[in-house]
Amino acid sequence: MDQATNPTGPDSDAAAGPPGLFGGIFANGQATAETSDAAWLCALTDAEAALARAQATVGLIEVDDAEAIAAACEPANFDPAELGALAASGGNPVIPLVKALTAAVAGDAARHVHKGATSQDIMDTAAMLVSRRASAAILGQTGELTTQLARLAHTYRDTPMAGRTLLQQALPTTFGAVAAGWLHAIGTAAARLAEVARHRLAAQLGGAAGTLASLGDAGPAVATAYAGELGLAEPTLPWHTDRGRVADLAGALGELSGTVGKVARDITLLAQTEVGEVSEVGGAGVGGSSTLPHKRNPVAAVAALACAQRTPGQVTTLLAAMVQEHQRAAGAWHSEWPALNDLLGTTGSAVAWLETSMRRLQVAPQRMRANLDLTGGLLLAERVTTALAPQLGRATAHEQVQAACAEAAETGHDLADTLAWRLAGQRTRDDIARLLEPDGYLGSAGVFVDRALAAHRERGRPNVGGPWREAAR
Amino acid sequence: MDQATNPTGPDSDAAAGPPGLFGGIFANGQATAETSDAAWLCALTDAEAALARAQATVGLIEVDDAEAIAAACEPANFDPAELGALAASGGNPVIPLVKALTAAVAGDAARHVHKGATSQDIMDTAAMLVSRRASAAILGQTGELTTQLARLAHTYRDTPMAGRTLLQQALPTTFGAVAAGWLHAIGTAAARLAEVARHRLAAQLGGAAGTLASLGDAGPAVATAYAGELGLAEPTLPWHTDRGRVADLAGALGELSGTVGKVARDITLLAQTEVGEVSEVGGAGVGGSSTLPHKRNPVAAVAALACAQRTPGQVTTLLAAMVQEHQRAAGAWHSEWPALNDLLGTTGSAVAWLETSMRRLQVAPQRMRANLDLTGGLLLAERVTTALAPQLGRATAHEQVQAACAEAAETGHDLADTLAWRLAGQRTRDDIARLLEPDGYLGSAGVFVDRALAAHRERGRPNVGGPWREAAR
Amino acid sequence: MDQATNPTGPDSDAAAGPPGLFGGIFANGQATAETSDAAWLCALTDAEAALARAQATVGLIEVDDAEAIAAACEPANFDPAELGALAASGGNPVIPLVKALTAAVAGDAARHVHKGATSQDIMDTAAMLVSRRASAAILGQTGELTTQLARLAHTYRDTPMAGRTLLQQALPTTFGAVAAGWLHAIGTAAARLAEVARHRLAAQLGGAAGTLASLGDAGPAVATAYAGELGLAEPTLPWHTDRGRVADLAGALGELSGTVGKVARDITLLAQTEVGEVSEVGGAGVGGSSTLPHKRNPVAAVAALACAQRTPGQVTTLLAAMVQEHQRAAGAWHSEWPALNDLLGTTGSAVAWLETSMRRLQVAPQRMRANLDLTGGLLLAERVTTALAPQLGRATAHEQVQAACAEAAETGHDLADTLAWRLAGQRTRDDIARLLEPDGYLGSAGVFVDRALAAHRERGRPNVGGPWREAAR
Amino acid sequence: MDQATNPTGPDSDAAAGPPGLFGGIFANGQATAETSDAAWLCALTDAEAALARAQATVGLIEVDDAEAIAAACEPANFDPAELGALAASGGNPVIPLVKALTAAVAGDAARHVHKGATSQDIMDTAAMLVSRRASAAILGQTGELTTQLARLAHTYRDTPMAGRTLLQQALPTTFGAVAAGWLHAIGTAAARLAEVARHRLAAQLGGAAGTLASLGDAGPAVATAYAGELGLAEPTLPWHTDRGRVADLAGALGELSGTVGKVARDITLLAQTEVGEVSEVGGAGVGGSSTLPHKRNPVAAVAALACAQRTPGQVTTLLAAMVQEHQRAAGAWHSEWPALNDLLGTTGSAVAWLETSMRRLQVAPQRMRANLDLTGGLLLAERVTTALAPQLGRATAHEQVQAACAEAAETGHDLADTLAWRLAGQRTRDDIARLLEPDGYLGSAGVFVDRALAAHRERGRPNVGGPWREAAR
Repeated sequence: MDQATNPTGPDSDAAAGPPGLFGGIFANGQATAETSDAAWLCALTDAEAALARAQATVGLIEVDDAEAIAAACEPANFDPAELGALAASGGNPVIPLVKALTAAVAGDAARHVHKGATSQDIMDTAAMLVSRRASAAILGQTGELTTQLARLAHTYRDTPMAGRTLLQQALPTTFGAVAAGWLHAIGTAAARLAEVARHRLAAQLGGAAGTLASLGDAGPAVATAYAGELGLAEPTLPWHTDRGRVADLAGALGELSGTVGKVARDITLLAQTEVGEVSEVGGAGVGGSSTLPHKRNPVAAVAALACAQRTPGQVTTLLAAMVQEHQRAAGAWHSEWPALNDLLGTTGSAVAWLETSMRRLQVAPQRMRANLDLTGGLLLAERVTTALAPQLGRATAHEQVQAACAEAAETGHDLADTLAWRLAGQRTRDDIARLLEPDGYLGSAGVFVDRALAAHRERGRPNVGGPWREAAR
Repeated sequence: MDQATNPTGPDSDAAAGPPGLFGGIFANGQATAETSDAAWLCALTDAEAALARAQATVGLIEVDDAEAIAAACEPANFDPAELGALAASGGNPVIPLVKALTAAVAGDAARHVHKGATSQDIMDTAAMLVSRRASAAILGQTGELTTQLARLAHTYRDTPMAGRTLLQQALPTTFGAVAAGWLHAIGTAAARLAEVARHRLAAQLGGAAGTLASLGDAGPAVATAYAGELGLAEPTLPWHTDRGRVADLAGALGELSGTVGKVARDITLLAQTEVGEVSEVGGAGVGGSSTLPHKRNPVAAVAALACAQRTPGQVTTLLAAMVQEHQRAAGAWHSEWPALNDLLGTTGSAVAWLETSMRRLQVAPQRMRANLDLTGGLLLAERVTTALAPQLGRATAHEQVQAACAEAAETGHDLADTLAWRLAGQRTRDDIARLLEPDGYLGSAGVFVDRALAAHRERGRPNVGGPWREAAR
Repeated sequence: MDQATNPTGPDSDAAAGPPGLFGGIFANGQATAETSDAAWLCALTDAEAALARAQATVGLIEVDDAEAIAAACEPANFDPAELGALAASGGNPVIPLVKALTAAVAGDAARHVHKGATSQDIMDTAAMLVSRRASAAILGQTGELTTQLARLAHTYRDTPMAGRTLLQQALPTTFGAVAAGWLHAIGTAAARLAEVARHRLAAQLGGAAGTLASLGDAGPAVATAYAGELGLAEPTLPWHTDRGRVADLAGALGELSGTVGKVARDITLLAQTEVGEVSEVGGAGVGGSSTLPHKRNPVAAVAALACAQRTPGQVTTLLAAMVQEHQRAAGAWHSEWPALNDLLGTTGSAVAWLETSMRRLQVAPQRMRANLDLTGGLLLAERVTTALAPQLGRATAHEQVQAACAEAAETGHDLADTLAWRLAGQRTRDDIARLLEPDGYLGSAGVFVDRALAAHRERGRPNVGGPWREAAR
Repeated sequence: MDQATNPTGPDSDAAAGPPGLFGGIFANGQATAETSDAAWLCALTDAEAALARAQATVGLIEVDDAEAIAAACEPANFDPAELGALAASGGNPVIPLVKALTAAVAGDAARHVHKGATSQDIMDTAAMLVSRRASAAILGQTGELTTQLARLAHTYRDTPMAGRTLLQQALPTTFGAVAAGWLHAIGTAAARLAEVARHRLAAQLGGAAGTLASLGDAGPAVATAYAGELGLAEPTLPWHTDRGRVADLAGALGELSGTVGKVARDITLLAQTEVGEVSEVGGAGVGGSSTLPHKRNPVAAVAALACAQRTPGQVTTLLAAMVQEHQRAAGAWHSEWPALNDLLGTTGSAVAWLETSMRRLQVAPQRMRANLDLTGGLLLAERVTTALAPQLGRATAHEQVQAACAEAAETGHDLADTLAWRLAGQRTRDDIARLLEPDGYLGSAGVFVDRALAAHRERGRPNVGGPWREAAR
């Protein structure tokens, strides 16, 4: 993946800490590095550096002092675990970071560290940077995923399969139409995330009570320069306890991972032993069971589902945290940090797993056809109803066909025969047999596939918009 | 409220059922009527009528037949409670509605009722209509609310009050800046809801498996005409199990009601007996207690908070329901109906209550000033730190001032005296006393108020966009 | 159902309001009546009556006055919709109820109405009464459900079917063991709810600040008599903002409905067209589709799932509402009313629907056997591994068998042949064929069925414990 | 803390990984070590060792082989990060653990590793061990907390303060009564968690489909011995997809942390600058602000609230995960691992922070009294109402007193004077002044304190019950 779509360069994985015992499932994909402690530290120091440079831009401090501070804003100078431990005293990790940063800056410049800012300015700005970088990673991987989905929709545009409602076979559709539905759902959700990442992630700078009082009249100018340095939107006014941005981001992430869950659920259902229409074909050891040597579990889809299962609870935490007191909340704000970070990481993992599942996916058109034939034509009952409706009225047609289906199902007789007998004289058995053939009853499935593919091409790869500050790593 | 912003006309309240025992709190405001059984029935029949007309438009059925069906699509012809009870057999209320509607249509036209559609087409379309109409009602009331908030921001632009972080007084701000923050937060959240209501609410028409098979080649044309009839967006393809629209709407509603909760929480805190900076002044009996004759409870803010407390759980239900199987989900889809409807109604109530609270709000600038003076200047400690930082360095200045504050707090001595003594020679007592005066340390509060007001004017009243179909009531 | 298990008598359904458009799905079963406005009004008046009688018991007021009040505590005297509307002024429906009740009591006794109580005392006590009565209704229906499940476990104790993990066939089990798992899960969850209903639902009486100050020294004695009148537990001290009881109840209801969801999910999966091991067989019109005449949807299981899908969000609202301020919360408390009531009603509906599903359930042992045979013995791979492990070591055996399975699946060759060839000399083909026979590899399935049935018998029907006050209807 | 209450010995902190950047807030207290990767690895190996020994106990394998396996079950032999990474292939970390363990066991014993078990048996059993050990740690710290709360209730039994409803002063109460309410709420919630930890945490052993087929007839005996080895309850039957235990535990943890949130919310409210009735007094640097040298933030209470804010979302994830398919869920089961672990850790942190807050708490009885006097007697209005009720009737008394309060508040006149004038002749001014004195209107506050303390003593320190297996560290 080239620089344009991977904001942190080729060594991003190295930047992440060890994913831990559950990390194999829940810390998958490129967003993992962007939600690590290292990524947060990078964002926090980026914010402090931008603050110093912004003050130099408007002439509050010397450029040399600003550069001295920016030079010290090197993540490697700080230990996240130590800052985390020290955060217990003051309630957030910025307090010890500012202390350590001040110590790291040589000479007079030190007195300009963190000037005019409050801890929340730096934390919120870092959260927005992390959100943007992680969103870029998620969207990069979503782009891969939609490419896979588009390929499926295109390849299987005209491959009939059973459409299923309430888990019962209902009417024929095509696997292309199913994949087109997945494609459009993922593509739309990704576009929504991209929109939030481009337009709603803003710098935060308000000082202790949101007035920028300690910067005198220069406050707004510093805020403008600060946002510019970071490539983040400049807000109308400080948003310390207006958490709409966080809620908006949370909603977009929840929507994307919920959509991933929908597709993954379908994969697990289609991969059932009794259905067998798709399977994940991985390398050796992939999808194996510790006790069942014959199993080929759709592990990637299962892992995607596991991730998707976690996000509604994470979103609810962030929405409930919107009710924040006065100019800084007592607890609700703090609760956002792990909740937002987990939500970014979990959504990224969900997308990454689904992309893996799609890469592994093996489609079995012949099983699709065999399953369609399982019901001996019952699936086309609607078509017969529709064909008879002009003559009998919809309700009567519905009742007649329902009765014939019940009889055929019960007696095991051929449905075409049963219908021909019941409708004696109104339709020939041949007519009826033709009506019961799935290939001729796919409606606009192909049109819908074409539309979804066109929308996909028009939409382009989701991204968080250009030029923006990459992490200083 | 005039027709332009009230989609259901002046008698909309009459259309709602009785709100019930908890309705006084949770079914408040204009969205109540739009989320009633009557509103749903209206939307369901609107969808069936539009379907018939769409078929006539493309020539599938006669115009007379379509109009016969549309004429029977009169909500008053059907009893929601009866349809609800009958819904238990088939799992949704559209099945009995179609049966009753077919019976209500005289003659041959009856056979064209519900032609080509599946139950979910009608339910989902109705859900979108209800969402749009309820959103219009919510946004209408949000417009009233932001007008109130803008008035507060304007009136109290320069009224100093204590800014509070972690519920501790931190630095001075102004009540205007606080109200501007509320205004901008509500305005932005409302704009987000308006955007979803305008662009994401789409008609649903796919037939049993999303292929529109029973309409032959005419499917897409019928779908276009159907969406046009309803004034809803036409989707790229049927979205039976792509619930991104619902999630997007849920997120926007959750964001708006969370923002309402933030403002309401502030009101309740500012109205505390010990703070007394605002109060709700209602008429006789409003805010009274059954046992405490002296109390003046901020009932409207409390009710707004009660509503806001419920929405995160409602959103989580809708996000969790996104994982829907195949072409129609077994349960998750159904769970959306009450969850979405409750979320619309609860958000509407939250907004309505906050608007009431703002109308009742009485502001006490003298209490704001008295509270600022409570700490004898401690609140301006930051200013002293900033003033001393160029000489002493930020860290040393911070430590010196902190020590002086501690000493003053402990000994009860005057802070200006204590600081002057500690900083002997570096600053005069007069200098220090001037630094401790709140009015001179309001930073860019006024600028931020002006910006928020400008953004408010530019944004205009939130609305769901015209022209769109009003309810056929 | 006899009086002992039906606390509200045979006319309880009549007491409920119309269930509304979604009520056919979400307001099902006997808990519906117990969570209606009428039920709340009954509980509220029961609480006021008990309060008056308690005061007479300890001699604070005359018995005649108490009885005059109790006589006026007739739900029919009050209109819930009107009380609900009036609740908007003071923030809760008890304020207008007390006013109306005072007016309804003739003469001097009127001055003793609501004596010593605060609104929350009456609302909380009513919530506990409603919870108890609704829990009794839910548990009554759960008793019917476990009877059905026990019947299934007993009947199909030795009927082999495929056990499925990650939706893949894994090893044989029996339908009896599956049903026994359902039985035990539901039985345990019901027992937990019964425990909460018996021991944790307590009367509330504390007066405005939880000190019972206006009752002088008689407060505790009145509280004891009050709890006794109501058949509720007497709390150690007032619990106005200690919402542990509500959380405990919410957890138990969430656990029960989650368990219902698990069973209903299994039903929908087993009823899939391609699996066909169970089906719901209802009367005419049940499970029909508006467009697909042949379908037999497992509507009851689907509806149970729809209910179960809603409860986690309802529980989260109640848990988040635990953080209540001081002696009465500003909003969080109020948010409990609809959340708790919906949770009771939804859980009751979930149970009722699953009971219906079980009554309709038709089991197809021959399809179970056919599905077991689908994989030509692959399912017994573990058995072969185990049989070979002593000779080859578990890991090697696992690898050998896995390779054979892969080969058989790929080539379509008989698994027994493939294994015999690979294990040349170590086992005869006959030996291997015997190992691949499912009936002989059911392990302790039967033992587990017997244990679950024994535990079911021992546990008895879940109930909320004897003698307690029925609703005064 | 001695061994009896500290299951992991004095070096438990060393076992935990670095807490990370947010760990200072969210990974606080003794449960942190018990929810670390190291703790999980320990529990996983404990389960494998117990399985081997159980098989030896019933004679399925040699004791020497079992001990060889148990000897290899040394957490230090395995790297959690590596196992986590390898878990991605098969979907859980047990698969690579079994492989590594098999390799680590010398000789023939290796073939008995993991015999008869499925991955979920080991994961679920480990989850139960981790839950028990973490619960023990949480309850140990809750015991410290309730000791602090009991001390407060006892010390301030008779210290008057304002009771507050809807954040308005309502009636006097005592700080002792408030602390007694906290004590009882925490004590009850802890007792509930202890009950779950003692009785509901069960071993899991069912094999691939829950039949223990590969153990032949010995399955149940092995399961009994296995549970005995681990000191966990033996379940009636395998519970692979019956997640009632997990839900029950989740509910208890959610209840405890919600209760912590309630107390912490009160602390932050009482510590407000304008209220000042309590403060947290920490050492140097504790509660400091990066910009506001004078602030003394109640950091511990704020951190407790931050933790409590996160748990409802975590519980909702676990409840939603109950709907698990067939014999092993595709995703829902996996989602439990991080959700449950986070919930244990977050609840533990919440408790630990509140305990810290209570240790730091400084109470200001004189501020309590001053706040009571703020309203010049308005607070005692109820008492006057009650005193007048016998003569005037409750409603009239209420109205008269309300009018007098309004007049006094408006005119600034003395309330006693105003009332005396209005009630001319009915009560003397002295009588009225006495009625307006808070100390004489504390009702049963003292009785309730005594009861809560008695219940606390009777309940004893919460614990998970003896003798049970400590971690093999």
